[in-house]
Amino acid sequence: MDSNSVSPMPELAPIAEFDKSPPSPPNEEVPMDDLPPPPATITQSEGKKLKVQRSRSYDSEEHERGACEWCEYALVITLACILLIGVSALTIFWIFFYREGYAWADEIPEKQFNLHPTLMVAGFITFSGFSVLLYRICRCFRRIYVKLLHAIFHALAFPCIVIGFLAVLDFHNKTGIKNFYSLHSWIGLVAMGLFGIQYAVGFFSFLLLLICNKGTAGFRASLVPVHAAFGILTFVLGVAACLTGLTEKAIFTLGAERYSGLPDEGVIINAIGVASIAILAVIMYIVSRDKFRVASSREDHIRVSVDL
Amino acid sequence: MDSNSVSPMPELAPIAEFDKSPPSPPNEEVPMDDLPPPPATITQSEGKKLKVQRSRSYDSEEHERGACEWCEYALVITLACILLIGVSALTIFWIFFYREGYAWADEIPEKQFNLHPTLMVAGFITFSGFSVLLYRICRCFRRIYVKLLHAIFHALAFPCIVIGFLAVLDFHNKTGIKNFYSLHSWIGLVAMGLFGIQYAVGFFSFLLLLICNKGTAGFRASLVPVHAAFGILTFVLGVAACLTGLTEKAIFTLGAERYSGLPDEGVIINAIGVASIAILAVIMYIVSRDKFRVASSREDHIRVSVDL
Repeated sequence: MDSNSVSPMPELAPIAEFDKSPPSPPNEEVPMDDLPPPPATITQSEGKKLKVQRSRSYDSEEHERGACEWCEYALVITLACILLIGVSALTIFWIFFYREGYAWADEIPEKQFNLHPTLMVAGFITFSGFSVLLYRICRCFRRIYVKLLHAIFHALAFPCIVIGFLAVLDFHNKTGIKNFYSLHSWIGLVAMGLFGIQYAVGFFSFLLLLICNKGTAGFRASLVPVHAAFGILTFVLGVAACLTGLTEKAIFTLGAERYSGLPDEGVIINAIGVASIAILAVIMYIVSRDKFRVASSREDHIRVSVDL
Repeated sequence: MDSNSVSPMPELAPIAEFDKSPPSPPNEEVPMDDLPPPPATITQSEGKKLKVQRSRSYDSEEHERGACEWCEYALVITLACILLIGVSALTIFWIFFYREGYAWADEIPEKQFNLHPTLMVAGFITFSGFSVLLYRICRCFRRIYVKLLHAIFHALAFPCIVIGFLAVLDFHNKTGIKNFYSLHSWIGLVAMGLFGIQYAVGFFSFLLLLICNKGTAGFRASLVPVHAAFGILTFVLGVAACLTGLTEKAIFTLGAERYSGLPDEGVIINAIGVASIAILAVIMYIVSRDKFRVASSREDHIRVSVDL
């Protein structure tokens, strides 16, 4: 059972929660709020009276809001999944339809380069995106299984990123192009470094240290927000590298003249970039939304008051 | 007085809060946490005893943690300010030192183009960044003054973005370059559209609707998270447009051959991009950190218990 599902809230809490609930749910993040001060706290006797009078309408309102939240949750998660699969599918389509597919041979280094965008998009966006999303999709799983799935998806991203990096490094060396001069390469290098550090630290701290569960709980708990923050940063850097890389590729391959005519290939390249940004926006929204993480604490309070 | 500073928390709450406090502060966001379930709740008599015994060490611990938090707050805000001013200063330096400064004349359209990166960085990053930061810097101000400052900083960003856009549009028309074909232009267009909508909606809802403060409180409260989320999205799009624009400019102006030799100008262009990403990371960190927003609710609980 989730540790949040039983709240050590004293008897008055559900009423206080009820007082605060309109206009915004208590658990919802309301940054930069400018609400007028809440009404004076209701005394215990008044509160009990109010509770008896309004319990039915409160329940139905709650039910309706819960249904809305589930609808929003399902829509946003579905959108994220479609975009995450779509961006990789679009990249593969682009390469097969316009760039003659893949290879790893000295004679056709261009086909070897094609592995770079495909594998980087798969590693930094699709697999990493699903790895983050798992914490919202698998809400009924035991925490350890979600963590293992998180590690497995990142383990799938790892070879993609390594091979994608080696493909472009080898392509540059074969064709005499210098390495690590562009903004794209700088961003990509930092993203790869962060990905490696995050994987090592995450694997060691959140899986290996479970051998001594209680003794390391404090350390692991303090590491969770750091790991999450740097994880989001790595994802942002991955998307930034994707955008700058696509811009470079469009200009180098199509040429400024052809690109400015916006041929079909240019539209496809731009669409991959737009999809990457849409993914970043949706994932940041999902991650920042507390309601998508665990059942709202207000529901717990209601359950407690009903049980009483 | 802030609406959060008086908590309707019953007598047991500070102790319950204390029980939960190690290893992580109660108000801190701990996403994806994997803590073991909290220890069984202490009964009221045990709790009171504990409170008496540990009140001093708790106070000093609290004080120390508060000092650490203030130190972190001051450091991060200072870093954000330096980066926000630095990125515009670096862009102006780049234009004056390597691109011969500014002008708006038919004979020298390149100097007219130079207004585009400078004004867009100033509008989308420096002024918009400070406008967001104000909600963390001016924590002691009355909310209405912070909102006015937020509107003023965005009002400064507005002409920068409009003139920056007109500068590049006119430059393209003068030199026969097509418009709106690149990924950079697509991202920039969406960012400008969102900026305009956000400004109009924000001005109308959070300033004009204050005429009827109580009647519109519910509407405004429900709009706050939407406005904040789209505000962050606009900022992310601004940074993405900056990165793709810098990549385009480096390749078009320096040429692939010269850029790959990483001349001083290439380093400066890359540095502007890196600074933009650093700003995005720092601002996202500051915005996501609850502690930077208002005084931690735990401090309020302590104040309540001391007052009692």
